[in-house]
Amino acid sequence: MTKENIGNFFEDYKIGMKFNHPTPRSLGNGERAIYQSLYPNRFSIYSSDLFAKSCGYSMIPMDNLIVFHTIFGKSVPDISLNAVANLAYFQGRFFSPVYDGDTLFSVSEVIGLKQNSNGKSGLVYVNTKGFNQKNDLVLEYVRCVMVKKNDLKLPAPKTLIPKLENVVDPNSFFLPNEVNFSNYDFDLAGSKNKFSDYDIGEEINHIDAVTLEEAEHMMATRLWQNNSKVHFDKTIRDDKKRLIYGGHIISTGRALSFNGLENAQVMIAINGGTHSGPAFSGDTVFAKSQILDKFENISESIGAVRINLVVAKKDNVDNQSYLKEIKESSIVLKFDYWALMPK
Amino acid sequence: MTKENIGNFFEDYKIGMKFNHPTPRSLGNGERAIYQSLYPNRFSIYSSDLFAKSCGYSMIPMDNLIVFHTIFGKSVPDISLNAVANLAYFQGRFFSPVYDGDTLFSVSEVIGLKQNSNGKSGLVYVNTKGFNQKNDLVLEYVRCVMVKKNDLKLPAPKTLIPKLENVVDPNSFFLPNEVNFSNYDFDLAGSKNKFSDYDIGEEINHIDAVTLEEAEHMMATRLWQNNSKVHFDKTIRDDKKRLIYGGHIISTGRALSFNGLENAQVMIAINGGTHSGPAFSGDTVFAKSQILDKFENISESIGAVRINLVVAKKDNVDNQSYLKEIKESSIVLKFDYWALMPK
Amino acid sequence: MTKENIGNFFEDYKIGMKFNHPTPRSLGNGERAIYQSLYPNRFSIYSSDLFAKSCGYSMIPMDNLIVFHTIFGKSVPDISLNAVANLAYFQGRFFSPVYDGDTLFSVSEVIGLKQNSNGKSGLVYVNTKGFNQKNDLVLEYVRCVMVKKNDLKLPAPKTLIPKLENVVDPNSFFLPNEVNFSNYDFDLAGSKNKFSDYDIGEEINHIDAVTLEEAEHMMATRLWQNNSKVHFDKTIRDDKKRLIYGGHIISTGRALSFNGLENAQVMIAINGGTHSGPAFSGDTVFAKSQILDKFENISESIGAVRINLVVAKKDNVDNQSYLKEIKESSIVLKFDYWALMPK
Repeated sequence: MTKENIGNFFEDYKIGMKFNHPTPRSLGNGERAIYQSLYPNRFSIYSSDLFAKSCGYSMIPMDNLIVFHTIFGKSVPDISLNAVANLAYFQGRFFSPVYDGDTLFSVSEVIGLKQNSNGKSGLVYVNTKGFNQKNDLVLEYVRCVMVKKNDLKLPAPKTLIPKLENVVDPNSFFLPNEVNFSNYDFDLAGSKNKFSDYDIGEEINHIDAVTLEEAEHMMATRLWQNNSKVHFDKTIRDDKKRLIYGGHIISTGRALSFNGLENAQVMIAINGGTHSGPAFSGDTVFAKSQILDKFENISESIGAVRINLVVAKKDNVDNQSYLKEIKESSIVLKFDYWALMPK
Repeated sequence: MTKENIGNFFEDYKIGMKFNHPTPRSLGNGERAIYQSLYPNRFSIYSSDLFAKSCGYSMIPMDNLIVFHTIFGKSVPDISLNAVANLAYFQGRFFSPVYDGDTLFSVSEVIGLKQNSNGKSGLVYVNTKGFNQKNDLVLEYVRCVMVKKNDLKLPAPKTLIPKLENVVDPNSFFLPNEVNFSNYDFDLAGSKNKFSDYDIGEEINHIDAVTLEEAEHMMATRLWQNNSKVHFDKTIRDDKKRLIYGGHIISTGRALSFNGLENAQVMIAINGGTHSGPAFSGDTVFAKSQILDKFENISESIGAVRINLVVAKKDNVDNQSYLKEIKESSIVLKFDYWALMPK
Repeated sequence: MTKENIGNFFEDYKIGMKFNHPTPRSLGNGERAIYQSLYPNRFSIYSSDLFAKSCGYSMIPMDNLIVFHTIFGKSVPDISLNAVANLAYFQGRFFSPVYDGDTLFSVSEVIGLKQNSNGKSGLVYVNTKGFNQKNDLVLEYVRCVMVKKNDLKLPAPKTLIPKLENVVDPNSFFLPNEVNFSNYDFDLAGSKNKFSDYDIGEEINHIDAVTLEEAEHMMATRLWQNNSKVHFDKTIRDDKKRLIYGGHIISTGRALSFNGLENAQVMIAINGGTHSGPAFSGDTVFAKSQILDKFENISESIGAVRINLVVAKKDNVDNQSYLKEIKESSIVLKFDYWALMPK
């Protein structure tokens, strides 16, 4: 028996199967600083200890995407080492804030299976939860991934597609007790636009763009201990390119969205996300957001806006028009989330 | 009205206008470690907690260039988003040391304006100050930047060019109370050369060179939350190149200068600085310094040397001769500063 | 007399000569986080504060290779600035664990000399020791480096080749008092394979591979303050390539070896190491290990396995066969070490 882990194949997954993912992970100022060096973040809660405290946090918290990438990364060796594609995220909710020195754990349960008609792969739905060292829930989400089948002679499992909501109900949000925007400093945050200034349907072009680099997305992928081969080894794909890590695109887009969404500080829920197309080193990506919905009744000082973030490749021909309409073929990410915003 | 910030244009600036720049920033060991991974620093005060304490600091301080880049970065969205060129720095002075956990704020005031004769741009002079969370001043400097004019029909403002000294008067230095070099360990610092060993006019060739990389200067630029487009987006310039961030060149040059200036540990003032030419990924840069002046009367154990740091591109033809005379066209930075040195 | 350090030449070394290497270095969470972003580590003792404590450590320790690279880096300015080649490591032993906030010092003594027959260079053997701020020994190893001779007219020194053991005797291991694997959680560590599951002679193919990047190995080299020119300056070598820093290869290989050696957590001794061939940016490297020996009698809960780690370049032609036999010409590192493993 070989000792190396070659990962699970489609036929290995059964409904109800649970994974206690290895390699717990402590996070600190070092991880936050690298995150800042990889993404052009300027959301002030995640930049300033004082600003975070003025919003009720005990200290500067981890960006919720740091939490997402860490918990996701732990699930890769058990869930997606033989993935053909990482199809989508659903129903993500963030719970207790994560602080310097916290240690995160990740567990998953198989909640859906559907073999593809070609018999060579199948969809696996997992519910993944993240906890801190006090066993407080920090994150929960569902992920759908297409996994290779190894032994094609084995029968297909019974199809079960879980019921998934398109939108996380704002009434189910977990608002950290400490969070309070009644002393929010709009000047220091970088914009006077508050909850009431955003209209449903409104579009925001975030102006800036970033040309992607191999070293940067590989550093990110390793930082979250995600060991998916295609991001590191150029010999894997036929085109001899390394696929940019999807979490790198999410964080790049979210950071770019600061310009115009300065006060959409805290990602509180992920309604859905799809990596619509691949990105490679040398591609230049930009971001656009649309306000899909609003929910006023979070607390006296806080509302929530539902935002559809699109990240796309910039076509060089015309630097201005790319913002007006985005060609479907240039889109690399669609990410639908709720963010807390001061009233 | 759009929500995204497209930045100010020349006509938006008025003498006396004040900016309270957004996004306060907490710094810690993570930021210091990334700085170490980006620049070949070996100045021992910034490397060792024990060495720093032996020089009177309460703990290892932030490199003064970390402070400079952080405060500068905050000013970019308000001051230089539509800059044609970042022309020069003047009259910089460092004040209270910055330590792990400190949070920095940045404010600027417009002190000079001069429209260019072509009417399409103009010079903006700003005085920028940085403060920590206790409201202690940590840095003050003047910057001159050439900014695009947007509405060319608007009249030119009255020209006002501020009086700027070429050299910071050593009598105006702020010597942190704690700093004391009477127990200075020259062996551990890497050189026995002390204040009295340097002569005015003396030149030092720092030997080493570094080939520049996109990932590295972009990580630096983001670490200080500087959102200037030309460093990130290769589609901006006609030559489809990303301009290396100027702060990356300053820090590279200063770190290279360790070899020969091992004991010029603490940058205490910036007399002037100019980014003389652009640098791009793949360029190999080296550094040379000349002692311009000396000031003995700082304290019993400390003197100050005025250093002219030149960073230039290395011409491949002859690896030895490049140090002897530097072609003006290969120079990317001229940086004139005062450093504290043990007597 | 010039102030810049051009390094020592072969003729400068004498048997018994001692170096108190400059630039003490404090390490913290920032350095650990960058290490995680550069290498695909998943060893749980170095990832989780809780896991480290469950193994008896007072907190998460520094990876022993962080300690090795830091101590080694300090020796470069005195020992190998004019190295033709870094030939080999011998008899390395790790002592007190290093924790966040510790400051490391490095000293070396010349223990062997042999001029090459061409008279242009010679072998220098140094014994290098690392200490923390409490003067506790943290590492000791011997290194053999080939150094250029500058003044070829000088006579050859008397040849002295030190007696070096091929293997560190496990009875001489320093087991940190705190380390205890009796509560070891194999599930969280990522594998149930324990000391008794590994057989002498067994080979493990670690599956994953990494394509190397300039930015990444240069960041590593600077992080440990190693100023060897060939890693930074592309104009140095005739082929205009930057040589990948050897420590980057060691850490890459060790991290890749997690897959199959999940519980070989703590590197306790280095029997020998050789950088067999150069690696350059764009090369894709993979790792293979063989169990060379086992030593049971460390403690009730701990054994030691002797591992021969080989890192080699992946030939693109056939992605599967490369694991079966590795061509000698593709090998870049042979690294023979002892690791502690739970029983």
